[in-house]
Amino acid sequence: MGTRERILEQAIELFAAQGFHGTGVADIGSRAELHPGALYYHIGSKEELLWLILRNYTSVALTGARRIAESDLDPVAKLRELVAFHVRLIADHRREVLIQMRDADALTGERAAELQLLRRRVQACWQSVLDEGHRKGQLRSADRVVVNSLLGMVNIVATWYRPDRGDTPERAADQISALVLNGLAVRGD
Amino acid sequence: MGTRERILEQAIELFAAQGFHGTGVADIGSRAELHPGALYYHIGSKEELLWLILRNYTSVALTGARRIAESDLDPVAKLRELVAFHVRLIADHRREVLIQMRDADALTGERAAELQLLRRRVQACWQSVLDEGHRKGQLRSADRVVVNSLLGMVNIVATWYRPDRGDTPERAADQISALVLNGLAVRGD
Repeated sequence: MGTRERILEQAIELFAAQGFHGTGVADIGSRAELHPGALYYHIGSKEELLWLILRNYTSVALTGARRIAESDLDPVAKLRELVAFHVRLIADHRREVLIQMRDADALTGERAAELQLLRRRVQACWQSVLDEGHRKGQLRSADRVVVNSLLGMVNIVATWYRPDRGDTPERAADQISALVLNGLAVRGD
Repeated sequence: MGTRERILEQAIELFAAQGFHGTGVADIGSRAELHPGALYYHIGSKEELLWLILRNYTSVALTGARRIAESDLDPVAKLRELVAFHVRLIADHRREVLIQMRDADALTGERAAELQLLRRRVQACWQSVLDEGHRKGQLRSADRVVVNSLLGMVNIVATWYRPDRGDTPERAADQISALVLNGLAVRGD
């Protein structure tokens, strides 16, 4: 692991545990075993660290969502894949998702705008899959309320997911897909 | 509005806009038109304010959820009512929900434990409705993944709800209930 990666890893750990505002730059530096001041040589500021963490995470989300949305699968299969991909991503990046929920607002100016843009692009992938499914008569609705609800459902996985209680990304994704596709009502009420 | 209510209203406004950590006690006091120091006379600390805000909000959520869970409605109707009640609550308390998502972790000790307890009780109301529906053969699943997903879907309303774009609690709740009960798949795929 290079110095930069070591710094980012410590920043993720500390921001997730104590929050962005509760974390001092000096803590990050000392946990990454840097001399005082060396952190600023490698990374400009605490906000820059937050930006790198959230940009990296959201870029991975976008790459995966795009690959699925642009694949040759039918829309229902794409939706299942989107759920499975995001749940796995979130299970693997719970710390980043918690940082995003809590501290994304600490980004300012261009960084805030750029993160917003990346997140809108992820959402646009989900929207395009629902639009396609709705157009082809396979999905009942492509309303933005539905898209937002689906994203809420997968993002909240970060707060309840407990591998130590036997949760797995596969089981969580299967249950969420079943809920989303078939609903809960036995008689279609 | 009494002094205490005026202080709470300003704290909600500032915490929602700038975050708990980004808000100074002096700002709250001056926006509530108090002399310096008077705020501490009325409210012990900034954490006490956060606690009062989140406790009040969560108590309202719990009272409503309990009333529905313990009513004579059938389980499917209870589930619709829970969604409708929570979506309206969230639309009316977007600031509190944002504060909860972002800053609930700033509570410590007994206050953190008590808030956790209130939130578990809200979740238990949803769980009991799903359990009842599942037992009576009206709902397909009462798994905790489903309960957590439903709560994620309704809580996330706080982040996308835009009355200025024509969103209403009724429309949002109807769409979420349709998604939850009937699912998206046209052929039950």
